Amino acid sequence: MSERSEQHTQAAPAEAPRGATLSRRRAITLAGVGVAGVAGVAGGAGALARGGDHAAASDTAAGAVPFHGEHQAGITTAAQDRLHFVAFDVITKDRAKLVALLQEWTAAAARMTAGKDAGLIGAVGGMPEAPPDDTGEALGLPPSQLTITVGFGPTLFRDAQGADRFGIADRRPAALADLPHFAGDALKPEISGGDICIQACANDPQVAVHAIRNLARIGMGVVSVRWSQLGFGRTSSTSRDQATPRNLFGFKDGTANLKAEDASLLREQLWAQPGDGPDWMTGGSYLVTRKIRMQIETWDRSSLAEQEQIVGRTKGSGAPLGKTREFDEPDFAAKGDDGQPVIAEAAHVRLAHPNQNGGAHLLRRGYNFVDGSDGLGRLDAGLFFIAYQRDPRKQFVPIQTRLARHDAMNEYLRHVSSGLFACPPGVRDAADWWGRALFS
Amino acid sequence: MSERSEQHTQAAPAEAPRGATLSRRRAITLAGVGVAGVAGVAGGAGALARGGDHAAASDTAAGAVPFHGEHQAGITTAAQDRLHFVAFDVITKDRAKLVALLQEWTAAAARMTAGKDAGLIGAVGGMPEAPPDDTGEALGLPPSQLTITVGFGPTLFRDAQGADRFGIADRRPAALADLPHFAGDALKPEISGGDICIQACANDPQVAVHAIRNLARIGMGVVSVRWSQLGFGRTSSTSRDQATPRNLFGFKDGTANLKAEDASLLREQLWAQPGDGPDWMTGGSYLVTRKIRMQIETWDRSSLAEQEQIVGRTKGSGAPLGKTREFDEPDFAAKGDDGQPVIAEAAHVRLAHPNQNGGAHLLRRGYNFVDGSDGLGRLDAGLFFIAYQRDPRKQFVPIQTRLARHDAMNEYLRHVSSGLFACPPGVRDAADWWGRALFS
Repeated sequence: MSERSEQHTQAAPAEAPRGATLSRRRAITLAGVGVAGVAGVAGGAGALARGGDHAAASDTAAGAVPFHGEHQAGITTAAQDRLHFVAFDVITKDRAKLVALLQEWTAAAARMTAGKDAGLIGAVGGMPEAPPDDTGEALGLPPSQLTITVGFGPTLFRDAQGADRFGIADRRPAALADLPHFAGDALKPEISGGDICIQACANDPQVAVHAIRNLARIGMGVVSVRWSQLGFGRTSSTSRDQATPRNLFGFKDGTANLKAEDASLLREQLWAQPGDGPDWMTGGSYLVTRKIRMQIETWDRSSLAEQEQIVGRTKGSGAPLGKTREFDEPDFAAKGDDGQPVIAEAAHVRLAHPNQNGGAHLLRRGYNFVDGSDGLGRLDAGLFFIAYQRDPRKQFVPIQTRLARHDAMNEYLRHVSSGLFACPPGVRDAADWWGRALFS
Repeated sequence: MSERSEQHTQAAPAEAPRGATLSRRRAITLAGVGVAGVAGVAGGAGALARGGDHAAASDTAAGAVPFHGEHQAGITTAAQDRLHFVAFDVITKDRAKLVALLQEWTAAAARMTAGKDAGLIGAVGGMPEAPPDDTGEALGLPPSQLTITVGFGPTLFRDAQGADRFGIADRRPAALADLPHFAGDALKPEISGGDICIQACANDPQVAVHAIRNLARIGMGVVSVRWSQLGFGRTSSTSRDQATPRNLFGFKDGTANLKAEDASLLREQLWAQPGDGPDWMTGGSYLVTRKIRMQIETWDRSSLAEQEQIVGRTKGSGAPLGKTREFDEPDFAAKGDDGQPVIAEAAHVRLAHPNQNGGAHLLRRGYNFVDGSDGLGRLDAGLFFIAYQRDPRKQFVPIQTRLARHDAMNEYLRHVSSGLFACPPGVRDAADWWGRALFS
């Protein structure tokens, strides 16, 4: 069965041995039924109802986002509502196994983003004595604008001991330079870094979780989950068609974000250009992730005026202080009657704004998270920050250096995890695969 | 500003002192604006666009579920897609403070389920030098069928040392008997138990998180978050209008669940009846929660046939083995050609089925969870089990005793958290409050 479908083509067992031990006779009988089932689906239209025409469906929350293209989907794609992000350690030393996995992953990602099962057979087809090649929890669910985006971490190129693990050390881009320590960083190594990351975004969290879970399953023995993060609500817009969402400080976030419509800015600020570094990254982008714990209980005890001073925007409309509408340009020179800046020197909007950072932009697509509680009577909540850019050395690093030193918001923040990944350009067609240009 | 609304009636500051210190003059100026803003909203229809007619909207995913009624909402309410569940420790010894909190919580819950701010003033109204009485992250979001359901744990009646903390020890229902240890239990005390629980279910996770976060904020100094759990996908239907969803084993879950339409069964199996115990619980229900970690990586390596034998249903359609449709009754007596039962003796569906448990039903409304990874290369994933019932001693306890001893699925499960709560009947009207009959 090749599509995610509720239709069940496998007959009920004619005989059911007790427990999990299958008699050989029964296995053969059921295998025959399984094959018939696959054939039945391949020839029938009913079971294919979920796939459909992706282009036509791509503008609905349930539709499909095309997987193949010049750039990876999931970067400028209008930010979906839910996230499952994972960072893997590669646990093999065998380059061929890693390459085979990247190829298998690419095929699975192409299928799942189209709303199909991870494997060709699916959760309920094939040989009953074999594990299904899809785990099944997304059966019957639409594509839900799932995007699956891959990135390669610094440690894939050279390990902590400096070894060239897979013969690609000389292909490491200079822009994939380890991030410096920032003031106030409280990073936990066990939820930072990683050799390979995969970002799954979708409008249905079950679809995003299903994608990561199946990629982890496919990678068994080659990669191991280092850390993973769910995000329940997007905190940025990446398209002018989207309303600006709110973070857990209750403020609109990402008003000045780089957006899909900013064609010339995307070339200048988002996509690696020819000559930037190794050719394999041309058309790709660099990803920085930061898990930022918010001290929401302390924030909630601060006054509205203090919150607005810290952010530099009004809480209701999101307008910069001194202006009336969200998308009004902040006036950083304006002073009040008392001669003080209307937008404080330490306000987040001032320190982070491109105008104040030599024009450096980020394409942010972070998510709110709540990971239970912290054992100290508080919710473990915050922002899983995700930012794409052409060169972190010129974008995230100088911006974050400034924020870490001066941002009035720091009193309420704690960066507990950090990731850096080189996300290659898009997969062009069915013959292409994640990292082909890097490993060829 | 009394409604959650994007409209921002507070003018931008005419003067903005540096940092968080407000001049008295500015505070007064802004307070005046705030009052004008509230008046403006009260008189204007535009800002009220989100509230609307709850009854009319209650059948849409974005609509409101009525808060007042004979029973609490969030039990037989058609299961929403997302969950935020919290268990609190009460940290005051002052009964009056606890009662005042329950009253304040009730009012806030009534407001939030109607799509309004937690407080009367809201996130962006009122005095700028005061903390907002709503945290703001749900501004502009619809009610999303939010339900907020409260329950009282055994430790609220008598603490671990046996002390009658709030003068209600003699009102503890016999049915709220501590759960026994079940075979295989691996409970973590820090994420088990709790004096008071609140279950927030909604179709938008940001709305569910907002509700719990604001109740925790309101409870500061009286209660402390003991543990909290997000669930991203419902695993049961509680209405015949809902399709049966899938758990992270990839199987349909809750096919034989108690449903809102089963009126006589609900009386018999779900709601505490007059004479069952103390009067304050009549019309209420007992809640058992279990956080069940699933060993999904091991499960994913097991064969389809083994998975189906363990569950006792086919993976695709959810039909009982030997039958063809999901809602066909399982035939536990049927034997295959080899003389063995078609549904194995240790199959989950057999052991959990009401027919095999003296007619005992549960109303389940659990959720899938993924809490990052476990540090051992695996996703920390599973089922947050939630079940309501008339008397756990006659329902959950005997069923779970049997499952814990015999269920073939146990190889893939680990119960890591447990909760037991008495959920009082519904709040009848605006003068009623959570626990009124218990504390009066």
